[in-house]
Amino acid sequence: MGEVVRVRLDLAYDGTDFSGWAAQPGRRTVEGELSAALSTVLRSPEPVRLTVAGRTDAGVHARGQVAHADVDGEAWRLVPGRSDRSPEEALPTRLAGVLPSDMTVARVARAHAGFDARFSATSRRYLYRLADDVSVHDPLRRRDTVSVRGHLDPHAMSDAAYLLVGLHDFAAFCKQREGATTVRTLLALSWERQRDGVVAGTVVADAFCHSMVRSLVGALVPVGEGRRDVDWPAAVLTGAVRDPGVRVMPPHGLSLEEVTYPPDAELAARALATRATRIPG
Amino acid sequence: MGEVVRVRLDLAYDGTDFSGWAAQPGRRTVEGELSAALSTVLRSPEPVRLTVAGRTDAGVHARGQVAHADVDGEAWRLVPGRSDRSPEEALPTRLAGVLPSDMTVARVARAHAGFDARFSATSRRYLYRLADDVSVHDPLRRRDTVSVRGHLDPHAMSDAAYLLVGLHDFAAFCKQREGATTVRTLLALSWERQRDGVVAGTVVADAFCHSMVRSLVGALVPVGEGRRDVDWPAAVLTGAVRDPGVRVMPPHGLSLEEVTYPPDAELAARALATRATRIPG
Repeated sequence: MGEVVRVRLDLAYDGTDFSGWAAQPGRRTVEGELSAALSTVLRSPEPVRLTVAGRTDAGVHARGQVAHADVDGEAWRLVPGRSDRSPEEALPTRLAGVLPSDMTVARVARAHAGFDARFSATSRRYLYRLADDVSVHDPLRRRDTVSVRGHLDPHAMSDAAYLLVGLHDFAAFCKQREGATTVRTLLALSWERQRDGVVAGTVVADAFCHSMVRSLVGALVPVGEGRRDVDWPAAVLTGAVRDPGVRVMPPHGLSLEEVTYPPDAELAARALATRATRIPG
Repeated sequence: MGEVVRVRLDLAYDGTDFSGWAAQPGRRTVEGELSAALSTVLRSPEPVRLTVAGRTDAGVHARGQVAHADVDGEAWRLVPGRSDRSPEEALPTRLAGVLPSDMTVARVARAHAGFDARFSATSRRYLYRLADDVSVHDPLRRRDTVSVRGHLDPHAMSDAAYLLVGLHDFAAFCKQREGATTVRTLLALSWERQRDGVVAGTVVADAFCHSMVRSLVGALVPVGEGRRDVDWPAAVLTGAVRDPGVRVMPPHGLSLEEVTYPPDAELAARALATRATRIPG
């Protein structure tokens, strides 16, 4: 490969029929499908390698996922064929022609050299959708909404959530991994009842450890149902060990909505700083 | 059957895997599934018969469909079993236990004697969802959103739609049926770009003839794309014959959102008046 172009891809997917983001032999994954589609459109002799902002688990959706790939400069320029469009304009349509219907590349952009989809990101925003009554249940949204039995009080859930915001060791809500830190900055966590009756939670952090959002939601649902006190999730956090009383909620209520990045001039510095704090060793 | 109770059912369904509302031998239909579920829960020796407000076509969805059924008074009172709930409270949960996941009965109510889900209705409101750019395409909503190629101007579509509102013969937008009138009152038809980028059309009429909403949308999309003038759909209406230039849009963009009824005291009179004007012979 001669000149290399770093490309940013903004994508969305219905996670229902994927074994998560990360490519695994014999499994249908978002990374696997996207890499295959890019390799086809770019006529790449080797599978295009991808780096992603949020490695979503099996069943988790995304409306605002971001990935990057380094592609051959010549192949990049050839994307539009004979048309007068740029590669950025042509690639989403070309990809739509080869990708399965449960995923879409919404935007493609040539990225700044310092851009890293994973390590340059300053925050990730997730959404979790709960239906607490049969009258709220919309069959058209059953793939991204989780039903709970009790009636939920989103105000109580927000009050409890507020006590978790800030820089903390979230070990109580993380699947522990050898040598990896579980210290994160939870930037926002709040709940509201939407017009359609769904109780929706917005969760923003610099980054998340494994199963963290689903565990946080699992600690807040009993508060919303009135089965736990408002200060119980904060007590679990302080305990710093996984609490068997905290249910890891189902993946299909969760979707990655947005990833934010600093201005171009700060991208490389941000990536260096993130690697230094988050990677073990 | 002794004493009879007329029951109103408010329901929602994902129309993707149904051959429409109306029961047909050997086909999976909404009416067939709902009748079977009601017969099970009410232990009815015969299939419970249903009357519906909007006989949706194959692939069309509903969030606000209304049906009624006449059920045995004794079976109705036995629905809650040993619980202290009313039949109205217990039936949605009991039905949720036997219905497939792509349909939900949101509410059940004992109806006024004069209530007829079809003939008492004063208006039906439908929604049609269009995505006009790959960046707008949300894979989680692909089952109730139709993609179009051109960029849409919802203001031009609303301007064209406004010229269709009122009492007209909609023969140009209806599949003709022997002896049946195609005169309807179109109460509202407007378009807006939603926060998620989808261009959504709201269509309200006293009633609709077959394929009318999908034909109206098919006449307005070329206006939104700039391929037809704003006054073209009104010219088609005046022509009073089906125009081969009008595409009947795909069913999956359409959903029945709401059915409205007059106050209880006017229900029976409304049903009589509707039957007199709309039934042939």
